[in-house]
Amino acid sequence: MTEEKRPVTVLGLGDMGSALAGALLAAGHPVTVWNRTATKAAPLVAKGAVAAETPAAAIAANELVIMCLLEDRSVRAVLGAAEEALPGKVVVNLTNGTPRQARELEEWVSARGASFLDGGIMAIPPMIGGPGSFVFYSGSREVFDAHRAAFDVFGESLHVGEDPGFAALHDLALLSGMYGMNVGVLQAFALVRSAGISAVEFAPLLNRWLTSMSGFIERSAEQIDSGEYGKDVVSNLGMQTAAFGNFPRAGADQGVSFELLAPLQALMERGVAEGHGAEELISLIELLKK
Amino acid sequence: MTEEKRPVTVLGLGDMGSALAGALLAAGHPVTVWNRTATKAAPLVAKGAVAAETPAAAIAANELVIMCLLEDRSVRAVLGAAEEALPGKVVVNLTNGTPRQARELEEWVSARGASFLDGGIMAIPPMIGGPGSFVFYSGSREVFDAHRAAFDVFGESLHVGEDPGFAALHDLALLSGMYGMNVGVLQAFALVRSAGISAVEFAPLLNRWLTSMSGFIERSAEQIDSGEYGKDVVSNLGMQTAAFGNFPRAGADQGVSFELLAPLQALMERGVAEGHGAEELISLIELLKK
Repeated sequence: MTEEKRPVTVLGLGDMGSALAGALLAAGHPVTVWNRTATKAAPLVAKGAVAAETPAAAIAANELVIMCLLEDRSVRAVLGAAEEALPGKVVVNLTNGTPRQARELEEWVSARGASFLDGGIMAIPPMIGGPGSFVFYSGSREVFDAHRAAFDVFGESLHVGEDPGFAALHDLALLSGMYGMNVGVLQAFALVRSAGISAVEFAPLLNRWLTSMSGFIERSAEQIDSGEYGKDVVSNLGMQTAAFGNFPRAGADQGVSFELLAPLQALMERGVAEGHGAEELISLIELLKK
Repeated sequence: MTEEKRPVTVLGLGDMGSALAGALLAAGHPVTVWNRTATKAAPLVAKGAVAAETPAAAIAANELVIMCLLEDRSVRAVLGAAEEALPGKVVVNLTNGTPRQARELEEWVSARGASFLDGGIMAIPPMIGGPGSFVFYSGSREVFDAHRAAFDVFGESLHVGEDPGFAALHDLALLSGMYGMNVGVLQAFALVRSAGISAVEFAPLLNRWLTSMSGFIERSAEQIDSGEYGKDVVSNLGMQTAAFGNFPRAGADQGVSFELLAPLQALMERGVAEGHGAEELISLIELLKK
């Protein structure tokens, strides 16, 4: 049996779990599946998967166990009911969660004689196994390397640290970036639409503009690491804050709510009040601690 | 005299106004300048500009008058003190403002026998005249075409509508997008940094991730124009809202404030409560009216 064909157990067959199991089957891995609602297993069984009756039976079937459930609570419930099957297993948790949940789960799983990796999937189900999909893993690098061939079936595999919380941390950080972009896109389209302008006509401008901004991400990163926000400033916080009142004013005139960007305005004003007016806006990161 | 060499008056010599006047001089245009604090004119006079003593004298000097002041109030004050010089002039206002301010200014200027264009500069001062700089103009297309050669000195010139408010509207919409992206970038870096991860190491991942999102802008635009948010949904609002609690939870664990994305979470919850759970997140635009 080659590395590529290592048998894998997949627990949880929602859209994402089913996509993971399907990708493994397509790559030639023997796959054992389990799902709380057993009917979800049928399409995978039709493609060659074996359906286990219980989580314990599914875990017992293979060394490598991938979990993709609704939330941390579901993971705890499923593993809690299958403790006796855990010794010697490699548990890879791809369920959405927080860094703390991953760290606590790692302790719990290790205490039961199994290895643990946490993961964060940066793709939606139809992307799994295709280009553009990537997955963060954290925990033992050795365990990651030993099972990487199976992980690579899902997309690019990125090991981001021995700390089991780091995959969830990277996942949440990138998703924060995406949700911020959503805030901007919602606000931008809401404004142009309020004047009867077609979103489709405006979209290429918005796309081009946001893409042209990407250089500021690298520049901001250097400033954050150095803690130096006031050198060669291209657009200072004070000027930006002074002009920012145009957003709520225009929103009021055009009947567009400004609620999504209101906390940024408040933070900018606080930054100026606390003496950061001559620095770049990214210096506000220093005020996001709590 | 060729089209390229048309003489231009520039009122307001802050960083942006100085960059505009400097670009015109570099392109061979005769330039007359005026600034409230006269010393700001010296570097431009050294490059060949003529400094006028008063706004009225500066406006009287040339047909084409470009204004780049602090805010709408300054524009009103300067023009109000130079009414007698306005008949027959072409006033191009590149001062930051709202669509309503532009529309009201257009009425006021037209009533005094001058033509009016409003503009929104999508660049910072050092970018003026270089690649990547572009400027929105709105108002009479005919007036725009007649003076376009001078405008093209600043960067790409985009006429976005006869409604004089449309340049400010496009400007504020793109800046909204940028500020949303800032929210995401601040939140993402704040999270990774809370775990001691270098921003510089994380930046390429964030850049790649946000760039890969750009396709959703076009897709969202089609959904907005059609009002159809529930077809071929790739990631529905209900699922996203259910997982969103991980952000404030992780923030609390890591000591990172979640304030910047809190209103998005509230809006998502409202969207689900109002029956949009099976639609794409962009359907929230329907709730941003007020």
